Amino acid sequence: MISKSKQKFIRSLQQKRNRREQRLFVAEGPKVVGDILAVSSPKMVVATAAWLSGHKTQLSQQTEVAEVTDDELRRTSFLQHPQEVLAVFPIPEQKPHVFEEQYLTSHLCLALDGVQDPGNLGTIIRIADWFGIETVYCSLDTADLWNPKAVQATMGSIARVNVCYVNLEEMLSALPHGYPVYGMLLDGTDIYQQQLSSYGLIVMGNEGNGISPAVRRLVNRRLLIPSFPEGRPTADSLNVAIATAVTCAEFRRRFALKNE
Amino acid sequence: MISKSKQKFIRSLQQKRNRREQRLFVAEGPKVVGDILAVSSPKMVVATAAWLSGHKTQLSQQTEVAEVTDDELRRTSFLQHPQEVLAVFPIPEQKPHVFEEQYLTSHLCLALDGVQDPGNLGTIIRIADWFGIETVYCSLDTADLWNPKAVQATMGSIARVNVCYVNLEEMLSALPHGYPVYGMLLDGTDIYQQQLSSYGLIVMGNEGNGISPAVRRLVNRRLLIPSFPEGRPTADSLNVAIATAVTCAEFRRRFALKNE
Repeated sequence: MISKSKQKFIRSLQQKRNRREQRLFVAEGPKVVGDILAVSSPKMVVATAAWLSGHKTQLSQQTEVAEVTDDELRRTSFLQHPQEVLAVFPIPEQKPHVFEEQYLTSHLCLALDGVQDPGNLGTIIRIADWFGIETVYCSLDTADLWNPKAVQATMGSIARVNVCYVNLEEMLSALPHGYPVYGMLLDGTDIYQQQLSSYGLIVMGNEGNGISPAVRRLVNRRLLIPSFPEGRPTADSLNVAIATAVTCAEFRRRFALKNE
Repeated sequence: MISKSKQKFIRSLQQKRNRREQRLFVAEGPKVVGDILAVSSPKMVVATAAWLSGHKTQLSQQTEVAEVTDDELRRTSFLQHPQEVLAVFPIPEQKPHVFEEQYLTSHLCLALDGVQDPGNLGTIIRIADWFGIETVYCSLDTADLWNPKAVQATMGSIARVNVCYVNLEEMLSALPHGYPVYGMLLDGTDIYQQQLSSYGLIVMGNEGNGISPAVRRLVNRRLLIPSFPEGRPTADSLNVAIATAVTCAEFRRRFALKNE
């Protein structure tokens, strides 16, 4: 049973303003909630008896628990097809790492410059997780990761990737001189013909407009995923999450080869 | 101005049954409509005066044209943010090619086994276009490409990729003995450690369950996109469109290298 006021509180977290004020976000379904439970303790759990009986030991005494019927869950959930559990978690602290030289020169990171679609953002976090990219920097005008659509699109990877909202232009300007800043640009050069480093920043741009002019000036290695065969009429571009995946895969392929 | 009955007819094409009966589908926005206009003549165009004035020469006398205000377009469109034009096109004939030996041994094709999400399907068609994959076979239980969400997700690539719905199990069974049938499977072996051929079929499975058991038996080369670093806890899988892109990129990278 769940009170109307709690339902109202949960629904209020659909709004970015309320999430920021409360420092809370909503995750749903056993997979996503389960992955976040491994690293964080929820403020509130709304779940069916079946889910609760399997997860009692994972919940602390500080967590408010509401056991609900499928029907009550449906009336609380943001999803079309709610799945067993909805949980309210604290938004974690940002760990920017950005001025730690040792971190910088031993890690490959992503930077998103104005990615607008929460689904794309969540998918990119899932990709980062798969390819072992620990930290993703987002420009201040990138979609909010704590938006329920973005949270669900991460499929739980939100629990394993450190996401930081930063002034991207300022951050890039403060990097050591010559630090590798890769940018995916339609006028870049074939990624398969370029030397890549095992560390650095890969900047991905907005869905419609690509990387903003101010950030583009700070990119020192312009890359392109070539279409095939070259010169044939084709799509104007790849979706930003798709381009991120192909790029990360290629960096990791090279690095894995070097380690053999 | 557009009549209520025409609006109703267009809206009826949201249903697969009606699309199949009429052999018609709806595309929206200057980019998607423009790309399809290059290869096909629409039965009907609903557009603003601005769009029509720029495209008169591209429309045949057989096309019914309705000039509408932004408001009328909004009431006809399937999109939240309609853009200038909506057009009704004939569904093209399938060109299966599948028993043409010369085609088979000179082309790389994709086969989708039960991909459910229209957005994923459309994104995969856009990827196929970028990587020069002319033909995509879809199992009969794959989402309908002519679904408005799938059409929009192709971003116009629907005009350049030949998509065929087939009984995938029968089709694979009829291929010449030893013909390369690649499958992306979580128990496959590292794609970067495998020999790849410049032709063959790449099978991608359903979002939740992967490739069906019946089709899996007919896959003779099992591939995996390795996570990084190996053995670290990570996402359970990659999204199907993401995995398609990384796989196609790797096939094309190898083939481009061989041609140098």
